[in-house]
Amino acid sequence: MALTVVGSIAFDSVRTPFGERDRMLGGSAVHFALAARFFTQVQIVGPVGGDFGDEHLELLRERGVDVSDVERVEDGETFVWRGHYEADMNVAHTDDTQLGVFADFDPKLSEGSRSADVLFLGNIQPDLQRRVRAQANGSRLAALDSMNLWIETTRDSLVAAIGEVDCLLFNDSEIRMLTEEPNLTRAARAVMDMGPRIVVAKRGEYGAVLFTREGFYALPGFLLEDVRDPTGAGDSFAGGFLGYLDMQGTDTLTDQALHRAMAYGTVLASFNVEEFGTERVARLTEEEISERYDELRGMTHFESS
Amino acid sequence: MALTVVGSIAFDSVRTPFGERDRMLGGSAVHFALAARFFTQVQIVGPVGGDFGDEHLELLRERGVDVSDVERVEDGETFVWRGHYEADMNVAHTDDTQLGVFADFDPKLSEGSRSADVLFLGNIQPDLQRRVRAQANGSRLAALDSMNLWIETTRDSLVAAIGEVDCLLFNDSEIRMLTEEPNLTRAARAVMDMGPRIVVAKRGEYGAVLFTREGFYALPGFLLEDVRDPTGAGDSFAGGFLGYLDMQGTDTLTDQALHRAMAYGTVLASFNVEEFGTERVARLTEEEISERYDELRGMTHFESS
Repeated sequence: MALTVVGSIAFDSVRTPFGERDRMLGGSAVHFALAARFFTQVQIVGPVGGDFGDEHLELLRERGVDVSDVERVEDGETFVWRGHYEADMNVAHTDDTQLGVFADFDPKLSEGSRSADVLFLGNIQPDLQRRVRAQANGSRLAALDSMNLWIETTRDSLVAAIGEVDCLLFNDSEIRMLTEEPNLTRAARAVMDMGPRIVVAKRGEYGAVLFTREGFYALPGFLLEDVRDPTGAGDSFAGGFLGYLDMQGTDTLTDQALHRAMAYGTVLASFNVEEFGTERVARLTEEEISERYDELRGMTHFESS
Repeated sequence: MALTVVGSIAFDSVRTPFGERDRMLGGSAVHFALAARFFTQVQIVGPVGGDFGDEHLELLRERGVDVSDVERVEDGETFVWRGHYEADMNVAHTDDTQLGVFADFDPKLSEGSRSADVLFLGNIQPDLQRRVRAQANGSRLAALDSMNLWIETTRDSLVAAIGEVDCLLFNDSEIRMLTEEPNLTRAARAVMDMGPRIVVAKRGEYGAVLFTREGFYALPGFLLEDVRDPTGAGDSFAGGFLGYLDMQGTDTLTDQALHRAMAYGTVLASFNVEEFGTERVARLTEEEISERYDELRGMTHFESS
């Protein structure tokens, strides 16, 4: 039972209707790791620059995340994302991206990272994802996220990367874009034809849908009065989802386990958006997760007829 | 146990990526009635023109809908809606609306319609809704739908109409527009401050959310491979929701009853969109409803931790 995540480790500068933050800790791998660590041992893989303070690594370390495969490039700069959200926070607008040390990143996984049961390839250039996938030959469940940029600019690499994983976690609009199929159920089937046997469509505040060869499953997003910053919600979802599956054991991916994993993903994503960046999930407790899991059950269940 | 609905009785001309139909039977009251009749006795109130064929009234009558309050204006024309949907069928584009006999409609409810336990004020001009509401003084649960047009053009009348009902069923974007509050949970609370104690936010393919003073509840839309025409889905939802509540008895609006009503609304809406106009719901059976209700349970439930 162990999980390796590769993805961006970043400084995020974000403006929402509820405030703004400059150069806060962020990135897909960071949001994912801070959610998944509640369920399993997490190893994070990726480069940072000389500008990346020890306090950030310490924040991860204190929460049980193994940072020994975080590569520090002293004369380089950490990945930067700058973006904003309008009153309707379902859509992020990217204002600037600086690849920094990711431009020359050549992943080298340690023995520990290679042998993890579960592998999450967070949203980075698909050829990088493939190089990590090739090294992590111990993984029994490999999952992948991506974004519209890679669908538009490096589609062939992305399709090849998708062919090498068991599970795809995308925004629903990106699943439609990738497959050029407006109906989500048909689009998910088209993704399965590329390789993955599990497809998760993330729908922002509307929740998420799970597709397998046997059928489908869906949960609404947890309803909140205070949503301050959606950045990283999809990665927190993936962290809860895959973290729980790793804890359960990937030998037995029953429907029950997958459905519970969807619920844990929903719960972790809901905490993520309550405050800026990693603020809320960084101080989250197991008791709070457990309580919201039960609340989510109450707000979605109904009795038989 | 009886339900009165007022709303448009229309000829709809619709184009979607899956085909088109000209002047088919439609309108909010028709879609609503064809869904609600599975649960309770439905009386439909509204005007039609001399161009409205007997076969349409017969279709309603054969399915148990009481059409004695449908007023035929021989020298008038039936309400016409013409619209189309793009590949993303979540948004309807209205190309033309001809009010016809609705322009001079002066509702006069029969004794039977006045005394129904449940009243649904489908999407028509809010002053008309208020006149119907004033006559239906027997109703113990009055519900109302509307649209962006009335929020923009007759806001004061609409707010007055909302103040006179127990339940509001709106698209989520319209709840946000009405209250000028982007957060749906806060927006629903603002609607409750106007009067209704039950607020249902319809979210198209994403499902629906129920808000009461005690809390919230949400279901995703039923997933379908074939969605051919979303027209009327919101009214079919309302028909399943309110029809079930009337059948259950409006004295005892327990959370359990409201949650089951949400499920029946979701089920009826899902059948509505499978084919054009009323085609699918008109030939629906109780067995099919029951079966999909169970499927919806299976696709949303998860076990406790």
